Amino acid sequence: MQKQPLILVTNDDGLNAQGISVLIKCMQELGQVVVVAPNGARSGSACSITPIVPVTLKLEREEENLSIYSCSGTPVDCVKLAYEKVVHRKPDLVVSGINHGDNASVSLHYSGTMGAVLEGCMKGIPSIGYSLRTRKQECDFRPYLQVVKDVASHVLKNGLPQDVCLNVNFPEVPALKGVSVCRMARGIWQSEWKDTDVPDVYQLTGNFTNLEPEAEDTDYWALDHGMASITPLSLDMTDYSSLEILKSLQR
Amino acid sequence: MQKQPLILVTNDDGLNAQGISVLIKCMQELGQVVVVAPNGARSGSACSITPIVPVTLKLEREEENLSIYSCSGTPVDCVKLAYEKVVHRKPDLVVSGINHGDNASVSLHYSGTMGAVLEGCMKGIPSIGYSLRTRKQECDFRPYLQVVKDVASHVLKNGLPQDVCLNVNFPEVPALKGVSVCRMARGIWQSEWKDTDVPDVYQLTGNFTNLEPEAEDTDYWALDHGMASITPLSLDMTDYSSLEILKSLQR
Repeated sequence: MQKQPLILVTNDDGLNAQGISVLIKCMQELGQVVVVAPNGARSGSACSITPIVPVTLKLEREEENLSIYSCSGTPVDCVKLAYEKVVHRKPDLVVSGINHGDNASVSLHYSGTMGAVLEGCMKGIPSIGYSLRTRKQECDFRPYLQVVKDVASHVLKNGLPQDVCLNVNFPEVPALKGVSVCRMARGIWQSEWKDTDVPDVYQLTGNFTNLEPEAEDTDYWALDHGMASITPLSLDMTDYSSLEILKSLQR
Repeated sequence: MQKQPLILVTNDDGLNAQGISVLIKCMQELGQVVVVAPNGARSGSACSITPIVPVTLKLEREEENLSIYSCSGTPVDCVKLAYEKVVHRKPDLVVSGINHGDNASVSLHYSGTMGAVLEGCMKGIPSIGYSLRTRKQECDFRPYLQVVKDVASHVLKNGLPQDVCLNVNFPEVPALKGVSVCRMARGIWQSEWKDTDVPDVYQLTGNFTNLEPEAEDTDYWALDHGMASITPLSLDMTDYSSLEILKSLQR
């Protein structure tokens, strides 16, 4: 008998977020599920790791085909711990999310959801991040479940190219108008600091501007038009077209 | 009279690290310097931000053509704060480092040094990260100063392509054997957790393996052969070659 796929689930909103419980349920339809997720919110943690203080792993629940652990570290720590200290074979898939807040355009660089996905990819595991454009803690995830499962099934069946992972984003709509395979939009965060009552103490905030709102081949365009976006990301960040331009620096 | 270039300096080892003091001195030869750096070590902080607690900015020192601020946040927070709350015009250059420890290959994904560089790039400022392959807190940086200044001067004069920044790494050698403009090597971190005295509490550690040690066009090869590496990085992480492969997911 063929083994069930082994699926590692994590997120950056923490184990108690609604998004991860929805994702766990989706993944249980596709295989054996191991969850290792932060024990609290880790939004904006990107690919950060915990190099100085030790990290705690705690078994929260275990039942047939599902085990759930919490971790005191970052989403990347969760994947690293799961890989070496929890699973007994290499997972077939890493999924992260469903994040409360989109991770389209440059926002992915700050995203702990996508940090975990990049980490899965660095370990040679096909990895997918899911995020929903919402500001709510409680959302209706039903419009997205079919796409969540379709993308995961596709990846379980076909794999992904080496060193490539997926960034999947959903708009908050009652019904998706489509699914777009597309590139990252260019974008910029501005007005990022709010004064507090204390001088020289600031609270991070910010407004995002899509720098190419007319570009139909981008993730932001898809979300703005009621579609899910699927963007393949490369671990290799080398800008190959600049290598020649910089050759004069070679010695 | 032409204005002096305005150079923003930061790092992830904190304001008291030797690497940043060396970098500040180098940059003072090239322009007016503003330093906004973390008030302590932030290694492994990647592109993480501080979304929940407020962040403090503190003027530490001010003299002609040099002002130094400390910040309670991450390297990315430092660049964001400098940009909106410190400088009165857009900096001509962001430099980060000199990191104690290299950020070649996939290590760049975890790097706070490079997080700051990506942030500078996201703000449309030419940005460079410098890192030294060393485990020491006190190092002899003299063999690298000329390249540090040459690369910064080149970028001040010629700029960088849109959405491209530089990752510069140095090997620990008495004299550099050359400077290589090259791509990121493929690599993997393994054996990442050390047991502690407490069960289920682990300390992050790890061994890096270069997955393509023979590839002469990579950063790791350059470092292994006594050369500095200069790798252009792209903010746009889209893997364009996978867009076609994934088209069957489009709806």
